[in-house]
Amino acid sequence: MKCVHGQGSKGLAVLAFFVLPAVLYLQAQPSPVETGVRHVIEAQQAAWNRGDVEAFMSGYDASDSTTFVGATITRGYRQVLENYHRRYPSKEKMGRLTFSGIEVMPLGTEYASVLGRWHLDRAREAGGEVGGFFTLLFRKTPNGWKIILDHTS
Amino acid sequence: MKCVHGQGSKGLAVLAFFVLPAVLYLQAQPSPVETGVRHVIEAQQAAWNRGDVEAFMSGYDASDSTTFVGATITRGYRQVLENYHRRYPSKEKMGRLTFSGIEVMPLGTEYASVLGRWHLDRAREAGGEVGGFFTLLFRKTPNGWKIILDHTS
Repeated sequence: MKCVHGQGSKGLAVLAFFVLPAVLYLQAQPSPVETGVRHVIEAQQAAWNRGDVEAFMSGYDASDSTTFVGATITRGYRQVLENYHRRYPSKEKMGRLTFSGIEVMPLGTEYASVLGRWHLDRAREAGGEVGGFFTLLFRKTPNGWKIILDHTS
Repeated sequence: MKCVHGQGSKGLAVLAFFVLPAVLYLQAQPSPVETGVRHVIEAQQAAWNRGDVEAFMSGYDASDSTTFVGATITRGYRQVLENYHRRYPSKEKMGRLTFSGIEVMPLGTEYASVLGRWHLDRAREAGGEVGGFFTLLFRKTPNGWKIILDHTS
């Protein structure tokens, strides 16, 4: 009994000093899914703010089924790209984009959902400030995490 | 050789008359995920149109993390329910809801994404006609398929 009791204490010590801190540390770290998805979103914000719509668009899956839901539904990578070009024909119209309040929810290993806010700081002549919410659906593709559905309001 | 050839023909016949029709039939059927999710959406529409907000809300996951993105972000089943009650206090204000263009995308076995349009047919005195798009994220819970994220615009 003494021996068993001794092993129990040792087990508790291992738990308290080695396992528990490791678990807490790992829980505090973003998952690889979250890291991958956040990286895409940050790259998009940076691309937009240097006026590079093509680089911004590389966050989307280059597929005919990629879908953007805004005032209307736009289908296909090419059509979404054309819409961005048409609505934001100059760096002035593009303004300065800030994403905030980003929340990433992994959905298994292949998909992830993202909720966030967007704000466009822009001169009054270029259309003024605008902003709102977005929900994104990401899929892990051979080319990395890509947006397959964007609902922006 | 004749024997092998004979078996090949028989194999082709089995393929053409039994396997292929079965495969085509199964492909034409909605997946169990799609059937489950569509059932929830249809039940929501029916509940709304009989003025039963509680039954409508049973399509959402009864969780504090259930999220509704509209003009603002609302968190928690109870808060979403309260919002519906506040915005639609009477059957007249609720009007007649129609969902259309529903597209279900299974995301593995535990999640599904839905895109669709909503329209509220309503008397002018009650607020008039309104409508737009919605994207939903469903999760398979022990209580069935439930909405965990609703972005309505």
